[in-house]
Amino acid sequence: DICAAQHLRKSMPGSPELTKSPEPIVLQCRNMYCSLRNVGKIVEQIDRAVYSLDVAIYTFSSLILADAFKRALQRGVSVRIISDREMVFSSGSQINVLACLGVPVRMPITSKMMHNKYCVIDGVERVEEIRRLKQRKWIRPYCSVVVSGSVNWTRQGFGGNWENCILSEDKELARMFQADFTRMWKAFEKS
Amino acid sequence: DICAAQHLRKSMPGSPELTKSPEPIVLQCRNMYCSLRNVGKIVEQIDRAVYSLDVAIYTFSSLILADAFKRALQRGVSVRIISDREMVFSSGSQINVLACLGVPVRMPITSKMMHNKYCVIDGVERVEEIRRLKQRKWIRPYCSVVVSGSVNWTRQGFGGNWENCILSEDKELARMFQADFTRMWKAFEKS
Ligand SMILES: [Zn+2]
Ligand SMILES: [Zn+2]
Repeated sequence: DICAAQHLRKSMPGSPELTKSPEPIVLQCRNMYCSLRNVGKIVEQIDRAVYSLDVAIYTFSSLILADAFKRALQRGVSVRIISDREMVFSSGSQINVLACLGVPVRMPITSKMMHNKYCVIDGVERVEEIRRLKQRKWIRPYCSVVVSGSVNWTRQGFGGNWENCILSEDKELARMFQADFTRMWKAFEKS
Repeated sequence: DICAAQHLRKSMPGSPELTKSPEPIVLQCRNMYCSLRNVGKIVEQIDRAVYSLDVAIYTFSSLILADAFKRALQRGVSVRIISDREMVFSSGSQINVLACLGVPVRMPITSKMMHNKYCVIDGVERVEEIRRLKQRKWIRPYCSVVVSGSVNWTRQGFGGNWENCILSEDKELARMFQADFTRMWKAFEKS
């Protein structure tokens, strides 16, 4: 991925690791299949989260995405993660890192694999729940977004495989993915 | 999956394997998470294909879905498959079976994994191409549909994991997935 290598050089002089998200440059990239451009598009959506980020993911080792979640935590966004028991503790997993920062993580209780790869940003059902919990009457403007596809949040997923990922503001799609997350979150309560 | 086991008993008396799709019964199932109901919904879409089925899939061993593709071939639908080199030849793969029936199969030339799990049914770009190839002026009514998610087309995928799968008639989504398939199909021409 020549293109991604160039972005890294341009955006991160002197930085051995990608510790800041390089959206501004990357999002202007004209290569539709540039891996960093595509991670950047997901980062852009996570950075827009106002209330909630509900993530169901098999493997999550992307540092760029983990940093976007850290920024969200600093803004007071509620982050919840459901992942696979085996993968949470695999090397390079960012789920541990986020758990140490206070993110609640749940896993299937049985040996069933958690094979999903999606994130619901500001799903209506979750936003309403947060509003009830915090006893807020007013609400800040927000837009529900679904990020979902075949891609795991790993270097291989974004740069090394043939993959797909949808970013959608479709309200019905967001409602369905949020309902799916809520169902799993309840089912894995004791995990 | 108690529910699925019941459908099998009811729909397939005397049949050791699931060789006919059990949609009529299964689609009435009220369990949203019934694996056979969900496979049945994909089968229903494949059975509606008029012109083309373009499949990009990591693993495909589901007999129910393979049968739907066989019915499509008998109707004269153009089927193309892109899959992962390692997985095409794995045990239980239905891709070999379909290849023997004349379905063209392509694979990435490099060692990159083909990790997609989607099917485009009657994508506009492909329907137009088929119409040009067959020199037809008139066209039968059709509806573009995308089937895409985290789920591989295997027993474990449909029954043993926590997964998601979208069935969508969104025109823009179908256009994008069809374009992605076309791009890969050309890229893997020599495979
Ligand atoms: Zn680029
Ligand atoms: Zn059922």
